[in-house]
Amino acid sequence: MSQTTTQKSQDEKDIRQLIEIWRKGVEAKDSAVLVSHYTKDALLYDAIPPYKLIGPDAIRKSWDACMPYMPARMKATHRDIEMTIDGDMAVVHCLFRMDAIGEESPCGMSWMRVTICLRRIDGKWQAFHEHISIPFDPMSSKVANITDPDNPGELPPPPTA
Amino acid sequence: MSQTTTQKSQDEKDIRQLIEIWRKGVEAKDSAVLVSHYTKDALLYDAIPPYKLIGPDAIRKSWDACMPYMPARMKATHRDIEMTIDGDMAVVHCLFRMDAIGEESPCGMSWMRVTICLRRIDGKWQAFHEHISIPFDPMSSKVANITDPDNPGELPPPPTA
Repeated sequence: MSQTTTQKSQDEKDIRQLIEIWRKGVEAKDSAVLVSHYTKDALLYDAIPPYKLIGPDAIRKSWDACMPYMPARMKATHRDIEMTIDGDMAVVHCLFRMDAIGEESPCGMSWMRVTICLRRIDGKWQAFHEHISIPFDPMSSKVANITDPDNPGELPPPPTA
Repeated sequence: MSQTTTQKSQDEKDIRQLIEIWRKGVEAKDSAVLVSHYTKDALLYDAIPPYKLIGPDAIRKSWDACMPYMPARMKATHRDIEMTIDGDMAVVHCLFRMDAIGEESPCGMSWMRVTICLRRIDGKWQAFHEHISIPFDPMSSKVANITDPDNPGELPPPPTA
């Protein structure tokens, strides 16, 4: 392997590790862990309001406000993780879900789409921007849950005259 | 200015021009223009289903299916455009909206959040990933429209016992 290839596979490994730490942070409901990988001015477009959050402190407050609504025990899962790394910048996109363990909860109603944009700063990968969402049905203005990721959904039918 | 600074400001200019071409493509409802800046395997998480689209042909078909629902004349607007460029990779995030001209239409109900991830390929900036969304209210599962971008929205209140 060339030095570049070796570096890239190390970068992939490091970024996967960040994602895994974050995933475990969700299951542990540990908001300090959940914001440990952001730059100080990171901008998050989260799945729920506020529509934007800037910086680890604001993001942590938002997690802390959500925690009381979450089930006591959860399993967090990523799938379809794809990474693009070039030099000191990286983009990851994937699907993510949280499922309640041992109780009914709406928190596992859908996979969420996640985009993570990272920079290597002082040798450490840090997220400067993230975007998390579920699409919506424009006919009903309701969330269009992603229940089966292998079936992406239909295009709109032609309008009726 | 150093050569790097000059290059970066040229990159910013080139990427802003792409965004402007795309914006005019929306107003002209020209789906060929709207997909002219994607890599062949670009993955789009769009605001509405399907939850993912891969490649310019699929993205173009989705635009073409939406066009009949759009108002006859539209004004398209971006704001809060922020760019991070490093070498051959760039990330843009911003808000975007479409407003009907001369008629009532739900299409302007909200700003949308946009993330564009680009690579320089053969000297040309191309988007390999985009993510477009509106957040949703977890209490109602309804879209949480962004009507005033200067007011990002509230954190969830503490649960009632």
